[in-house]
Amino acid sequence: MLAKENDVFLCFTVYATLLIVKMYLIAIVTGQLRLRRKAFANPEDAMRHGGLQYHRDDATVERYRRAHRNDMENIFPFLFLGAIYSLLGPNLLLARIHFLVFFIFRIVHTVAYLFALRAPIRSVAYSIAQLPCFSMALQILTAVINYC
Amino acid sequence: MLAKENDVFLCFTVYATLLIVKMYLIAIVTGQLRLRRKAFANPEDAMRHGGLQYHRDDATVERYRRAHRNDMENIFPFLFLGAIYSLLGPNLLLARIHFLVFFIFRIVHTVAYLFALRAPIRSVAYSIAQLPCFSMALQILTAVINYC
Amino acid sequence: MLAKENDVFLCFTVYATLLIVKMYLIAIVTGQLRLRRKAFANPEDAMRHGGLQYHRDDATVERYRRAHRNDMENIFPFLFLGAIYSLLGPNLLLARIHFLVFFIFRIVHTVAYLFALRAPIRSVAYSIAQLPCFSMALQILTAVINYC
Repeated sequence: MLAKENDVFLCFTVYATLLIVKMYLIAIVTGQLRLRRKAFANPEDAMRHGGLQYHRDDATVERYRRAHRNDMENIFPFLFLGAIYSLLGPNLLLARIHFLVFFIFRIVHTVAYLFALRAPIRSVAYSIAQLPCFSMALQILTAVINYC
Repeated sequence: MLAKENDVFLCFTVYATLLIVKMYLIAIVTGQLRLRRKAFANPEDAMRHGGLQYHRDDATVERYRRAHRNDMENIFPFLFLGAIYSLLGPNLLLARIHFLVFFIFRIVHTVAYLFALRAPIRSVAYSIAQLPCFSMALQILTAVINYC
Repeated sequence: MLAKENDVFLCFTVYATLLIVKMYLIAIVTGQLRLRRKAFANPEDAMRHGGLQYHRDDATVERYRRAHRNDMENIFPFLFLGAIYSLLGPNLLLARIHFLVFFIFRIVHTVAYLFALRAPIRSVAYSIAQLPCFSMALQILTAVINYC
């Protein structure tokens, strides 16, 4: 059971779950965009919505898909690193800073991506969000490297 | 250790593992399709199987790859949400319904994708499978939001 | 907290974290490649680095992206299977062999992919790395199948 004593893990759980919900929202909006712009990845979808000419790519849909893929590349590893790091018994304030920095800058990354904000806003947000990830990976490895 | 008392977590583990195996199978079949249809993503593979002209895309291979990517977008978050939700101590029957709905409709989604069943079967399966995910995310957030 | 008694889980954590760091490195090198070869996925990035003509694909960048995607398809499921398998209380030596085979052959896979080593080195590395994954999935299912 989730022990109420493990505040760090519970704090991690909040941000992790919110980021997953954020990814779900990108997927939903991508689907709506496909319908609105009539740009379908599959011929069977195009057939249902006007004909095979709508089996095509769309620049905005592709942008959303790139944002979503970048989330998979970065948020999924955070789900693992954050969970293990929480179990190392870190200081709550320090841990919260790790999670919060990742959370905030992944949100900035998404906004910069979807609205095509001028470079390098998106790349900077990505880089800052990676800092707590590298920090957690380093702390995990320091703690467990003798067990490999 | 996996406590036998945590029936919900063990139940979750079954469906989660089966869905991962399902994803592995898509990858294997995609590889076989590339060989059979002579459509390779890498020139070095094409060279080994007849020449650079087989370094090319194939509509069916691309379909399998889209199905696989959609699994990554949806099954990977389930692995996290399902695990955390299990630790909240939910009712076993209710939890099993969550897992089973996700499992069944992700299988339907895969079948609809790979065999290009007519729209909107695939999209409906995707949407139904997301319902237990949103439900679990909401229950997790309700339980832990005060810890962020 | 991470119990020092669970040596298998700690051993798993080392390899899992190292593989995540490896994925991060691919992402970083991909970004450097985009800058060096002037091949940007987004027009706003191209604009900042010389003009819209650099909003284009590049064969090497695409190769790195395929390697990264293959990692997502295979390393992310390992993070789940390895964790659950560790909790089943397996023999430490046997477990270490599982993790080590996966780790080594995913490294070989990456090297073979990025340097375009001749086929079938990459495919063979992929296949060998899948063996411990299928073994862990089977052992998990055998242990918990009655709970579904």
